[in-house]
Amino acid sequence: MNHDSNNTQSQKLTGAEIAKHNSRESCWVVIHGRAYDVTEFLPEHPGGPKIILKYAGKDATEEYEPIHPPDTLDKYLDKSKHLGEVDMKTVEKEVKEEDPEEKERQERIKRMPILEQCYNLMDFEAVAKNVMKKTAWAYYSSGADDEITMRENHSAFHKIWFRPRILQDVEHIDLSTTMLGTKVDIPFYVTATALGKLGNPEGEVILTRGARRHNVIQMIPTLASCSFDEIIDAAEPGQVQWLQLYVNKNRDITKRIVQHAERRGCKGLFITVDAPQLGRREKDMRSKFSDVGSSVQSTSGEDVDRSQGAARAISSFIDPSLSWKDIPWFLGITKMPIILKGVQRVEDVLRAVEVGVHGVVLSNHGGRQLDFARSGVEVLAEVMPALRERGWEKKIEIYVDGGVRRATDIIKALCLGAKGVGIGRPFLYAMSAYGLPGVDRAMNLLKQEMEMNMRLIGCANVEELNPTLVDTRGLSMHNTTVPADTLGLGVYDPLAGPKEKAKL
Amino acid sequence: MNHDSNNTQSQKLTGAEIAKHNSRESCWVVIHGRAYDVTEFLPEHPGGPKIILKYAGKDATEEYEPIHPPDTLDKYLDKSKHLGEVDMKTVEKEVKEEDPEEKERQERIKRMPILEQCYNLMDFEAVAKNVMKKTAWAYYSSGADDEITMRENHSAFHKIWFRPRILQDVEHIDLSTTMLGTKVDIPFYVTATALGKLGNPEGEVILTRGARRHNVIQMIPTLASCSFDEIIDAAEPGQVQWLQLYVNKNRDITKRIVQHAERRGCKGLFITVDAPQLGRREKDMRSKFSDVGSSVQSTSGEDVDRSQGAARAISSFIDPSLSWKDIPWFLGITKMPIILKGVQRVEDVLRAVEVGVHGVVLSNHGGRQLDFARSGVEVLAEVMPALRERGWEKKIEIYVDGGVRRATDIIKALCLGAKGVGIGRPFLYAMSAYGLPGVDRAMNLLKQEMEMNMRLIGCANVEELNPTLVDTRGLSMHNTTVPADTLGLGVYDPLAGPKEKAKL
Amino acid sequence: MNHDSNNTQSQKLTGAEIAKHNSRESCWVVIHGRAYDVTEFLPEHPGGPKIILKYAGKDATEEYEPIHPPDTLDKYLDKSKHLGEVDMKTVEKEVKEEDPEEKERQERIKRMPILEQCYNLMDFEAVAKNVMKKTAWAYYSSGADDEITMRENHSAFHKIWFRPRILQDVEHIDLSTTMLGTKVDIPFYVTATALGKLGNPEGEVILTRGARRHNVIQMIPTLASCSFDEIIDAAEPGQVQWLQLYVNKNRDITKRIVQHAERRGCKGLFITVDAPQLGRREKDMRSKFSDVGSSVQSTSGEDVDRSQGAARAISSFIDPSLSWKDIPWFLGITKMPIILKGVQRVEDVLRAVEVGVHGVVLSNHGGRQLDFARSGVEVLAEVMPALRERGWEKKIEIYVDGGVRRATDIIKALCLGAKGVGIGRPFLYAMSAYGLPGVDRAMNLLKQEMEMNMRLIGCANVEELNPTLVDTRGLSMHNTTVPADTLGLGVYDPLAGPKEKAKL
Amino acid sequence: MNHDSNNTQSQKLTGAEIAKHNSRESCWVVIHGRAYDVTEFLPEHPGGPKIILKYAGKDATEEYEPIHPPDTLDKYLDKSKHLGEVDMKTVEKEVKEEDPEEKERQERIKRMPILEQCYNLMDFEAVAKNVMKKTAWAYYSSGADDEITMRENHSAFHKIWFRPRILQDVEHIDLSTTMLGTKVDIPFYVTATALGKLGNPEGEVILTRGARRHNVIQMIPTLASCSFDEIIDAAEPGQVQWLQLYVNKNRDITKRIVQHAERRGCKGLFITVDAPQLGRREKDMRSKFSDVGSSVQSTSGEDVDRSQGAARAISSFIDPSLSWKDIPWFLGITKMPIILKGVQRVEDVLRAVEVGVHGVVLSNHGGRQLDFARSGVEVLAEVMPALRERGWEKKIEIYVDGGVRRATDIIKALCLGAKGVGIGRPFLYAMSAYGLPGVDRAMNLLKQEMEMNMRLIGCANVEELNPTLVDTRGLSMHNTTVPADTLGLGVYDPLAGPKEKAKL
Repeated sequence: MNHDSNNTQSQKLTGAEIAKHNSRESCWVVIHGRAYDVTEFLPEHPGGPKIILKYAGKDATEEYEPIHPPDTLDKYLDKSKHLGEVDMKTVEKEVKEEDPEEKERQERIKRMPILEQCYNLMDFEAVAKNVMKKTAWAYYSSGADDEITMRENHSAFHKIWFRPRILQDVEHIDLSTTMLGTKVDIPFYVTATALGKLGNPEGEVILTRGARRHNVIQMIPTLASCSFDEIIDAAEPGQVQWLQLYVNKNRDITKRIVQHAERRGCKGLFITVDAPQLGRREKDMRSKFSDVGSSVQSTSGEDVDRSQGAARAISSFIDPSLSWKDIPWFLGITKMPIILKGVQRVEDVLRAVEVGVHGVVLSNHGGRQLDFARSGVEVLAEVMPALRERGWEKKIEIYVDGGVRRATDIIKALCLGAKGVGIGRPFLYAMSAYGLPGVDRAMNLLKQEMEMNMRLIGCANVEELNPTLVDTRGLSMHNTTVPADTLGLGVYDPLAGPKEKAKL
Repeated sequence: MNHDSNNTQSQKLTGAEIAKHNSRESCWVVIHGRAYDVTEFLPEHPGGPKIILKYAGKDATEEYEPIHPPDTLDKYLDKSKHLGEVDMKTVEKEVKEEDPEEKERQERIKRMPILEQCYNLMDFEAVAKNVMKKTAWAYYSSGADDEITMRENHSAFHKIWFRPRILQDVEHIDLSTTMLGTKVDIPFYVTATALGKLGNPEGEVILTRGARRHNVIQMIPTLASCSFDEIIDAAEPGQVQWLQLYVNKNRDITKRIVQHAERRGCKGLFITVDAPQLGRREKDMRSKFSDVGSSVQSTSGEDVDRSQGAARAISSFIDPSLSWKDIPWFLGITKMPIILKGVQRVEDVLRAVEVGVHGVVLSNHGGRQLDFARSGVEVLAEVMPALRERGWEKKIEIYVDGGVRRATDIIKALCLGAKGVGIGRPFLYAMSAYGLPGVDRAMNLLKQEMEMNMRLIGCANVEELNPTLVDTRGLSMHNTTVPADTLGLGVYDPLAGPKEKAKL
Repeated sequence: MNHDSNNTQSQKLTGAEIAKHNSRESCWVVIHGRAYDVTEFLPEHPGGPKIILKYAGKDATEEYEPIHPPDTLDKYLDKSKHLGEVDMKTVEKEVKEEDPEEKERQERIKRMPILEQCYNLMDFEAVAKNVMKKTAWAYYSSGADDEITMRENHSAFHKIWFRPRILQDVEHIDLSTTMLGTKVDIPFYVTATALGKLGNPEGEVILTRGARRHNVIQMIPTLASCSFDEIIDAAEPGQVQWLQLYVNKNRDITKRIVQHAERRGCKGLFITVDAPQLGRREKDMRSKFSDVGSSVQSTSGEDVDRSQGAARAISSFIDPSLSWKDIPWFLGITKMPIILKGVQRVEDVLRAVEVGVHGVVLSNHGGRQLDFARSGVEVLAEVMPALRERGWEKKIEIYVDGGVRRATDIIKALCLGAKGVGIGRPFLYAMSAYGLPGVDRAMNLLKQEMEMNMRLIGCANVEELNPTLVDTRGLSMHNTTVPADTLGLGVYDPLAGPKEKAKL
Repeated sequence: MNHDSNNTQSQKLTGAEIAKHNSRESCWVVIHGRAYDVTEFLPEHPGGPKIILKYAGKDATEEYEPIHPPDTLDKYLDKSKHLGEVDMKTVEKEVKEEDPEEKERQERIKRMPILEQCYNLMDFEAVAKNVMKKTAWAYYSSGADDEITMRENHSAFHKIWFRPRILQDVEHIDLSTTMLGTKVDIPFYVTATALGKLGNPEGEVILTRGARRHNVIQMIPTLASCSFDEIIDAAEPGQVQWLQLYVNKNRDITKRIVQHAERRGCKGLFITVDAPQLGRREKDMRSKFSDVGSSVQSTSGEDVDRSQGAARAISSFIDPSLSWKDIPWFLGITKMPIILKGVQRVEDVLRAVEVGVHGVVLSNHGGRQLDFARSGVEVLAEVMPALRERGWEKKIEIYVDGGVRRATDIIKALCLGAKGVGIGRPFLYAMSAYGLPGVDRAMNLLKQEMEMNMRLIGCANVEELNPTLVDTRGLSMHNTTVPADTLGLGVYDPLAGPKEKAKL
């Protein structure tokens, strides 16, 4: 059968026809009612060929959808491989086995707390854990190795305590500040996180709308589920967005992306520098694992399953040779301010000033890259004195992300000298559980918390926040406790309280 | 129908009549057998209109009672809105659904430990948790945000250890001291806590009687369930009381309150400075939440439930613009010693000395306001050296509250330089569980503990307590532990003890 | 009826007769088959009258036995109150209700691990907890207040780590040392602990025999269940014992006790200085509590139950006015070396040197007196440098007790400069669970452990132990961790391991 | 019956004949189908006579096999005691009682995760725990005393955090380094661990093959289950191995072993210096305990069971008098580089340099010897500055072992100055659970992890690793937390999340 180009297709393809191309030798898949020949593309697929072959000759839409922006096929698959429309009535629906886990999830969704029951950002996380698909939860919530940095990010804020001022006039609280010249209503931004459609079918545009409502900035991720233009288009006039960039080995592509973003109005370029390779996240890997076909013990020691979770599937666009000497080139191709995202030690902040970038984000990628990287806020406490010592604290804007869940966390970071903080997962969870109303409420809660806590710390606006308001002596303590012995674990009586009367 | 003034009412109102006024447009409620038109008052109600509307056209007494002092309606609702007596026989009794939680609580009350089974202040807390209404427990026991400061208040005492002296003649122990010139039998006072009737129908007057028995001072809260005069009247001649003050935006009201208190014999004015806005306490908010009418998912992201627990309902009387420049005015309107309650850093203690107040309470409001505020006793350990360095330690009396549960806690605070400590929740719990006998026993236990521990530390009276008797090196460590990895959590064998013989 | 003196009694008393004297007005009790009139003694009873009245007109032997040395009645009850023999056949046996707890205990005793299954001192503790009577376990195992010092005593050793030497010739290990001039085989002694018969009907003489087998010294407690002379008589010729002394207000009694001990061959006088009043131990108090007769709620707040556990029952023999100025008197009445037991800070050790005593025990009474007293070994680490600085380290012998469970604990104390360590509870538990074989095995295990660990630390004898062999940097950290928030407690996934294959 | 020498045996021995020799007086056993007279050997058996007597007159092969290298009988039992072949058909098979634990284990083996489900080294440990024989698991996994050092070894790495560099060209990662002159592909070696056949019937040769595949060095243990020559023979040409040596009291034997190893091509001699006596490992001892015959309570306090687990059974070959003065002798008998394995403090490293050895392993024997020995990596952080201060850091190679589970652990050790790390248990567990494929995958995982983490820390090869890349401030904190009181344990509400809707 001769296939016309997809614009002039005379007759729809049938399921039976497609089903024949179900092997590595000839591999067709159906996506959104159109067929594609991906045989030659198999070895190039960033997520590995295996996951495609699972759908060879079949409809792959459901698996494909949340991981790929809509312009993916146009961009990466030659038009000659676009085979045209499929008569979907002729495609056999896969009868899925009833999955008891999924059934339980549906039950949990029915009993899901109403939105007003979420009183803080952690609550969204708890709800999302219950109602998200297991694999989506695994992708969002996982961290590198033993997830020690991931948890430390939040714990680090717990090591910082307040030294509040009293008797300040705090009737009128002004939370606004500026970030890279943009005035925002509250000093956080929505940081870039990948694969938004895993949590909500609309994807990142929900965050765009939420950011608009509260006049905060959204950072657009390279690896969004929506296309870059969709996210830009979702913004209202005057709404500010930034671009997060993974640098492609092909600098022409990178240049195109950057200049396109600038043209479309992006006001900041955040170059990710903590991910020369995307991290291993074992929870994510475990969640993808399927028993099917692997009940026979492998004897080779080789990886038979190369799909390795969502994280690994998207990692081939990153240039591991990116280095300081590339920075001038970036400064040359755009007028957007350039910020290095993922700086993790004082020395590199100083160097960032020297090379002339406009900001850094002290970040460890949400604990998803190098385990035992220190939290951004701990690094911040080292960075600011070093900058002040040199009189450089105005030369560069310092941002922090990772582990922010409370307005007190934001205040702590600002007291220590940050210009603002990035928040990622909490908004993803709010979006995954409740959509836009969730994101809206999450931001509302932060605003309410922050207004109150500014009052309680005795500051009427963010300029008043300063290092004397915090006690950071606990921040450098990286210690584990000594494991208990049998006395403590098994022999000592637990302490008891009063005894109830015997039942009469 | 024409309503006479309530003094000349010819005929009682009927339930049917009142039931008609059940909307925002016309809202009547019955309280203690009398009807009130609160339609115009709705938007002014500190607790929000919603909670009133729930009782529109109905008897609201049970909900109203524990939260409002008896003189509230006279003070805040114009006489013209007092509609007069109601024929309560005609008011339909709401048939309450049987509440399984309440039933369980009644069962727990039956099996409640006898009072003699309470051996320390924590025991009252454990009992109260079991026998109090859930909402009352939530109001008393809740803290700000993650309740980290609330717990830290108690934990901080655990970081202070003793360096006891031996071979001192400790046959006769004298626990007495003076506070603001008043001789007391033991160096604690009953600090101000709101809404005493939530725990016991008689309210704060029980604490008045308990304080009398042990010759300690009671601080009268602005937000008591009993009226100020009721609490004053409950004192015996010569019994000393202090006033805790939330400063109203209307300084005339404030002045009236202060001067009234002075006239009625109060011996100290404690101005709360750590609460320009009342804290969010999520446990309290969660406890108020009701499913009724909210089973439909909200889609707006707006708060539909504004009642937000007892804490938020009482917060509108506080002036957030109160500042240092108001202090001279206070010094001018009263001869009572003035103490700032809620000071949280050295700098502000020094300033308090400079502005000429007579004392400060190092306090974080029982962990109910700013989470990650440090404990009062930790601040104390910084404050006293700074005062001594300037020779100012006699210029001001330093008090501490928060987390005191043991006589050793009191001793620690006094060793570090406090004049006395405030104790709040423990007496509330004792009162809630056992009434006056509970409060009496709680104070007795503290006295017994303190007498013994004074002996054991080698001091016959409180003047002998001094900093060499404590080791505070652990006090500044604000650290969390590193989260364990799978080895520790899942793989290492727990340590085992000897194995029992096999059953024969 | 006329009662003859007990030596010339013509006829035995009957149960019926005795049963008449069952009130505060006339109170007789039977002990070991003889009747006593304790009416007048009631108010003087150290344990309070209530516990005696429980047995008024009845046989009190079982309750009396483990708490009182055999010579108690002769010493403290006037001969005229000794009513003579009782015809025990006529005394009604109290039919005890079957106690389900006791039944379970008997079951546990049947399944008790054989002695060889105890591989360390903690094992005896675990077994004893299961097989001892609840009240006996409560008395031995309880500590003051929140039992924080009690647990800290053991934990403190966990903060000390080794810096072992390698390549030392450790073929022959010599564990012997001298204590107050006596050569012992291993550097621990059996410290004084009260009420041995609670654990074993033979009481403290079992420890005497165990100490003999291993050539270590036993310290005889003032409050032993066996009489002092019984314990002395149980020793073999040449076996060295010490006396622990609670100082009686009546110095004549004290002098008699001390000089009697010296005459009977005691080689050291350990004056307890950390117990001017015996501690409150709440577990002990709770264990004594009985529901009988107390189901009606008390309304007075007064203690209705004054029995307050075994600890409080034995506390009236101690002079709280004992002070430094009494020490010369002690030095004058005996030639035995005098050691202050319970010293808890450097200043007091220096003063002890100055007043000329021969030693101190750094101790907090096993955590049974002042909670938050620091561990003896922590104090030791401060004391020795202060002594060495003054060149006084040979002027006095320093002992430590509290929390020793492992030979490594002993080695740590000796490295830091202790002459030896006292061990109490572990031998009580070994004795309670297994009698003399238990004590013997416990000492054997310590010896085996110590020999091995001396090799591993690279020292052939105790003289080689020195401070460079330990790392004590963790010793001063008295910190509690920050309480976790909901993220840590409820939301973060626990780390997972590999998933088992689905069952086929 | 007259027994010929085993070479000229005319007739096979029968089971009946052998069964007669079942006592201490005459004790024969069958091993691998041949009979041996071990009557005279009984008292010399390193594992004690009891374990042999259990098999007197019977086939002991199953018990004997994993603990003894195949050349044991030839080496240690005089040829005259080799009684010759047995007609195994005549030997009664012991009908083993069905062991419910073993049955459960077999079930667990059936459901064992497939190899690809192991994503890190801890996973092998978790699987091995489930599928290994209890006694084998106990031998491998046990540590000294309270296993505090054993756990600390791993925890210590958790106290070291990274200070990663960004924007380094890390496209090409080179993990190779040299150890004692040998080029290896990744900086770890397989350290010596005893009794490999407990985990896998093939024993240590599996590790030989695994090491070959990844071009890393294997250290051959003195106490291997395979014979030294078997392990050497299993290596491929050019594959490098080292020898771990327990020094025998008989130096001729030691010399023979060392020179044989050198002749066979060993490239390093690792003299164990942390084990003058093999440690007590209570888990191991408990696992060996058998109820049989011990249901009667022992009354003597003596050890009736002397078998004491696998560890104690192999300990008699070690000379506890080995000392520094023996080192020159070793330097004289071999040209292999000499490394002291088990050095634990700075002073001894300096001395090692002075006596002229070529390296040290900072190690505490996997936590199996002295409990509270510090981790190797903690000692390393003290050692390197002391060496650098003297300019000695090139004079000696420093290795570390203990607790390494992640590539980040390896990187941390190298940053601090180690030349390489030894890994023991993880490979044993991989081998025990999955054989060679397990070992292979374990090494693969480490390589993948290390490559990624080198990128993330910003280093392209191991030479770039340096101390500025780590934050070790937490390393010296040896602290335990204060035990919680009843408030924390029993009274405070746990923090709650949002409430699910009531079921409708």
